[in-house]
Amino acid sequence: MAAVDDRLEKYAELTIRVGANVEDGQTVFINSSVEHAPLARALTRAAYAAGAKYVDVLYRDQHVRKAMIELGPDEALTYTPDWLKTRMELLPKATIWTTGDPEPELLADLDGERVGRAQMKALSEIARQQMIDRSVNWSGVAYPNEGWAQQVFGEPDVERLWDAVAFCTRLDEPDPIAAWREHMARLEGRAQRLTELRFDALHYRGPGTDFTVGLNPNARWMSALFRRADGREYVPNMPTEEIFTTPDCRRAEGTITSSLPLALHGDIVEDMTLTVKDGKIVDVQAKRGAEVVRGQLESDERAAYFGELALVDGTSRVGQTGITFFDTLYDENATCHIAYGFGIPEVFEDGDGGEGMNMSTVHTDFMVGRPELEIDGLTKDGEAVPILRNETWQLPED
Amino acid sequence: MAAVDDRLEKYAELTIRVGANVEDGQTVFINSSVEHAPLARALTRAAYAAGAKYVDVLYRDQHVRKAMIELGPDEALTYTPDWLKTRMELLPKATIWTTGDPEPELLADLDGERVGRAQMKALSEIARQQMIDRSVNWSGVAYPNEGWAQQVFGEPDVERLWDAVAFCTRLDEPDPIAAWREHMARLEGRAQRLTELRFDALHYRGPGTDFTVGLNPNARWMSALFRRADGREYVPNMPTEEIFTTPDCRRAEGTITSSLPLALHGDIVEDMTLTVKDGKIVDVQAKRGAEVVRGQLESDERAAYFGELALVDGTSRVGQTGITFFDTLYDENATCHIAYGFGIPEVFEDGDGGEGMNMSTVHTDFMVGRPELEIDGLTKDGEAVPILRNETWQLPED
Repeated sequence: MAAVDDRLEKYAELTIRVGANVEDGQTVFINSSVEHAPLARALTRAAYAAGAKYVDVLYRDQHVRKAMIELGPDEALTYTPDWLKTRMELLPKATIWTTGDPEPELLADLDGERVGRAQMKALSEIARQQMIDRSVNWSGVAYPNEGWAQQVFGEPDVERLWDAVAFCTRLDEPDPIAAWREHMARLEGRAQRLTELRFDALHYRGPGTDFTVGLNPNARWMSALFRRADGREYVPNMPTEEIFTTPDCRRAEGTITSSLPLALHGDIVEDMTLTVKDGKIVDVQAKRGAEVVRGQLESDERAAYFGELALVDGTSRVGQTGITFFDTLYDENATCHIAYGFGIPEVFEDGDGGEGMNMSTVHTDFMVGRPELEIDGLTKDGEAVPILRNETWQLPED
Repeated sequence: MAAVDDRLEKYAELTIRVGANVEDGQTVFINSSVEHAPLARALTRAAYAAGAKYVDVLYRDQHVRKAMIELGPDEALTYTPDWLKTRMELLPKATIWTTGDPEPELLADLDGERVGRAQMKALSEIARQQMIDRSVNWSGVAYPNEGWAQQVFGEPDVERLWDAVAFCTRLDEPDPIAAWREHMARLEGRAQRLTELRFDALHYRGPGTDFTVGLNPNARWMSALFRRADGREYVPNMPTEEIFTTPDCRRAEGTITSSLPLALHGDIVEDMTLTVKDGKIVDVQAKRGAEVVRGQLESDERAAYFGELALVDGTSRVGQTGITFFDTLYDENATCHIAYGFGIPEVFEDGDGGEGMNMSTVHTDFMVGRPELEIDGLTKDGEAVPILRNETWQLPED
């Protein structure tokens, strides 16, 4: 047991020091599933050890949510308690959220429309403003648990899942903190070089996919090395393997098909194809879970527009595991993905995305990458420059 | 497993219907330990089934608290987040809190003074005002779990603990709700007859105990059948076997010795003797845990005065189990107990306790009853009337 506890403590320390990069004297929020309590406790200890002023752990419980959706009145679905707004408004703060759903299919037998509608929009709006203001250093990290392992492997092999998580988060390195610094520098370099090429659009071509999406002239490509407005660096996703930008939400056309299952609101969305016209998703088809997506796209008037394009190649440690994690934090780092909903303010060099940056209360990433997917950069003159072929990066790197 | 789940659902329903007596359209707060999640979930379902408008489960975690006391800065100990004040202030509401400490000795190796000081006084003050206003219907209920069973039996025999809990809460009756109505009527009758005797004081005599405490002329004895200001009945403790009153906090003299261990702030207080002068506890001795009590008595200027006298005889189902539960909700219902700290506003017939009612941010019950304890009522003329001998009620009933 000593080895296991050491691993958890090391993991928590990496999340606090590199992920959220908690500042001396900061208030730290930990938003954790009840099933992730051992990680929440380790994060609390690591945060106090890093000098946190106060650590507040807020546990969420999917069973409580399920009871609300199943048995509660209609008004409960969208009710946002004042105290959660008060909490969300607190600044300055660091926030850690945990993933690794212990029961990813818990809500699958409920009315998909109610599941999609059950959302505290007022909280999303506060969080969105804080992202725009770049006022919070935050990070997401997963906790291996039996239910999640069952979903991933068909058996509750938590040790095997821990091994995969440790590999993906570089906990297996002799000095994980140094390994992260090197990893982020490599991704950041790739992003800078792609920004310099100033493509006008990307073109995705592959099974069920023929999709063109415009880029914003004032948006850069970046890695997940984020900076608060005052310059403090943090890494909001652990692991991260992507470089990404915010597309021009007014320019997208065609069809795009998902390549991996997507765990969303307690259901699994599989084999989804989106039809897009004038930037907007106008049709959703899926082998499973289409209703949850449709419900989400109706949650506000800009939910059906795009907010993120992310490129991941075959060097991804997550992709190398060959595992479908049924967890967006992992699966989106296995391969290329796209998000509908809110854009990422951080990519705009002047901090203002203008009309090209999508504003919404949702942000849902779905995976589109696979060996057959070809991605080209399109220049203003219409020239196509290969970026990805067979999951291999086609542009020069140092 | 079906039988177990049925029991939990029945238990939750009893708590919602008889304990808190949740009203149609009410907001319900459930304040639960993370380890009590299965009960919190069953309570949530039962509350929605009873017509709750919204159910908010707030999980607390003793390990997070331990990290704060052990590793946090001094200011963290008494910090009260604004959002918890906002939450506590919400009215109207029903509140359920759960007990059954999974690790009663978790904080035992920490600095007792820091443990005692770690308290959100602002929350206690809001709760105290709501008790004075009688604005909240609330109830406490225990969740049998491995750690608690280990503490009670020396082995994690959860089934044996469940059997005891089911017996004490009358879940073993064919119609538990009817059994509770009958039980409360019997206790309420006993309380009314004791009120009619209008004793001026009580005298406690037994091992390590020679203690006289004044009664308030306008305070009644009552059972735990509480009423909100608008008359809605609820039962704040499940189980309950006591009748109780709020003593005159200005009049108490002598020494009083505890008869059962007391689980307090993550430690166990054993064989405690309090010396009392002019109503105030002036000395605390104990075989174990005296420091936690001393720390608590210093938390405000009225903490060391008395707030409750409760009488329990040998008919108590909790007492009949012969089990020391290391949980105040149970142990205080096994036998006679006394509380230092805040008085109970509900007992004052005109709603105002005046100077005889103690005001404090703490309220800690400790057990004093045992076969050797003799309790007399003292009349204004100084006559002693036996109330309890050998745990048998000495006054006439019906």
